[in-house]
Amino acid sequence: MSNKLLTIGSVAYDSIQTPFGKINKTLGGSASYFSLAARFFTRPSLIAVVGEDFKKADITLFKKQKIDISGLQKAKGKTFHWAGKYHFDLNTRDTLKTELGVFEKFAPELSKDHRNSDYIFLGNIHPRLQLSVLNQIKSASRRTKLVGLDTMNFWIEKALPDLKAVMKKIDLLVINEGEARQLSGEYNLSKAAKKILKMMPPKGRGVPSAAEGTPPPVLIIKQGEYGLLMFQNGKIFNLPGYPLENVIDPTGAGDSFAGGLMGYLSASDNLSWDNLKKACVYGSAMASFCVEELGVKRLLNIKEKEISQRLKAFKKLTHFEHR
Amino acid sequence: MSNKLLTIGSVAYDSIQTPFGKINKTLGGSASYFSLAARFFTRPSLIAVVGEDFKKADITLFKKQKIDISGLQKAKGKTFHWAGKYHFDLNTRDTLKTELGVFEKFAPELSKDHRNSDYIFLGNIHPRLQLSVLNQIKSASRRTKLVGLDTMNFWIEKALPDLKAVMKKIDLLVINEGEARQLSGEYNLSKAAKKILKMMPPKGRGVPSAAEGTPPPVLIIKQGEYGLLMFQNGKIFNLPGYPLENVIDPTGAGDSFAGGLMGYLSASDNLSWDNLKKACVYGSAMASFCVEELGVKRLLNIKEKEISQRLKAFKKLTHFEHR
Repeated sequence: MSNKLLTIGSVAYDSIQTPFGKINKTLGGSASYFSLAARFFTRPSLIAVVGEDFKKADITLFKKQKIDISGLQKAKGKTFHWAGKYHFDLNTRDTLKTELGVFEKFAPELSKDHRNSDYIFLGNIHPRLQLSVLNQIKSASRRTKLVGLDTMNFWIEKALPDLKAVMKKIDLLVINEGEARQLSGEYNLSKAAKKILKMMPPKGRGVPSAAEGTPPPVLIIKQGEYGLLMFQNGKIFNLPGYPLENVIDPTGAGDSFAGGLMGYLSASDNLSWDNLKKACVYGSAMASFCVEELGVKRLLNIKEKEISQRLKAFKKLTHFEHR
Repeated sequence: MSNKLLTIGSVAYDSIQTPFGKINKTLGGSASYFSLAARFFTRPSLIAVVGEDFKKADITLFKKQKIDISGLQKAKGKTFHWAGKYHFDLNTRDTLKTELGVFEKFAPELSKDHRNSDYIFLGNIHPRLQLSVLNQIKSASRRTKLVGLDTMNFWIEKALPDLKAVMKKIDLLVINEGEARQLSGEYNLSKAAKKILKMMPPKGRGVPSAAEGTPPPVLIIKQGEYGLLMFQNGKIFNLPGYPLENVIDPTGAGDSFAGGLMGYLSASDNLSWDNLKKACVYGSAMASFCVEELGVKRLLNIKEKEISQRLKAFKKLTHFEHR
């Protein structure tokens, strides 16, 4: 039986303006991007909430992509709506609207099936909700192999004790460099990583490997167009961003990265350092596709062959011979 | 006979304040850092000017490091003095003083010996002076294998026609990402690189390789702590910055990079894409050493073994297995 991958996050409608185009109330949200990237590797399940305005076509879209949406709650009210406008450099954006709608009262509820997930990714929501998910899977925790977490500056500022409580229970943290600095109080990222990894004690779970034993906690620091740094137990790995000439819309890049990363990890069921590196490359490949078109559009039409081509391109971009 | 490597630039006294220490009127300048990094690979020659206050001890220092300073002019007046203060993040700095002194009237003069250099690096000085150097070696140009160039935003703003004239005559340009954007008018670095490489027509010189023929022009875009991107004829290579925990003083990192790069290229006399990548790693290794202590101090005590260790560390940092 293959591993079960579960994510908790938002399913939203996004209104996006970039210098290269605009789109109104299109399918978005962290759980959507995550699942649409992960489904190239496995059949992901998502837990989220939508409102009465959520379109049948979007339900169909998820189903067609073989994403398990049995955990997608429907509540009275409107679907979470985010509107934003990107600046010329695409690195900065103004949030024009954040209408939480039904998301405001979101309380994730896991079915028995979902509690038995092997790989779990807690998308960027209130740490208390992330914790409630972990409490629900507690009874099944012997089965859990890896819990990944995303968060943001808002929770670091507003809910640090809750965040620290979740961090004690996870195996993999994915944050950006500004957040890593904020969370650790260290500007230097190597120093920051050491401090953050200390907030994540080893769980003694996972997929032990002969060479490395039970995998220690992992920290991935995202650096936008510069790529990422991954830290584990004194080891460091760098992967650059894929140098695209035409970036259309950065929305969802981070969630697509996480989806590719977790999708590949759960499909390969291997948590060695070498395989974690590969998972980063798959994640980055998915992120690089994601930004090529507005919204989730590009994630819907990636071909298998394009993924392996991009992996080869990443290798060409980074590898050199020494001696 | 081994290749001759020549650089033109500044030899200066620097007064540096960083959050981790300060040092007064210490040996600095682009030609100093360049040569002190390059001398691990070859015996570099430098062309620069100093004033009457230039210390005997610093002459001895160059000689002891086997750097050819027969092209170091001594003029009436004071040695170029730069004073700067770095902010907490070490990425930004305030210039407190720029006293050009004898550098103001610097006119590079090449001896017959220097005109016969195989590898030439034009440090960051007025493009008109860079051009005058190239005019002096014109007669010996059949011998020249590679001319590298450094420049800065100041010349892009104040002397663009001169800069474009030099760019037509060089083979390798090293600039930072802000300058690449400014020079090309493109925010996207892949697009910027294409435009900039068009300003550098192929010269049909160099060290032809069986696989690649005469090497096309090369552009290296430095990205500070994020490392670099190298572009040539549609190919791209990324190398991250070395993740140091203790950066003490970023002064001279770029010049040390160029010194390591050019030193390795001239010693190996191989301009293939694979060897250019290796040269970037050697350059980045030298830059990573440079920033570990104030001023040029660390460049004076690097051990051969440390260089090969850092190369291995770069490989570990970047390499992953694909399939």
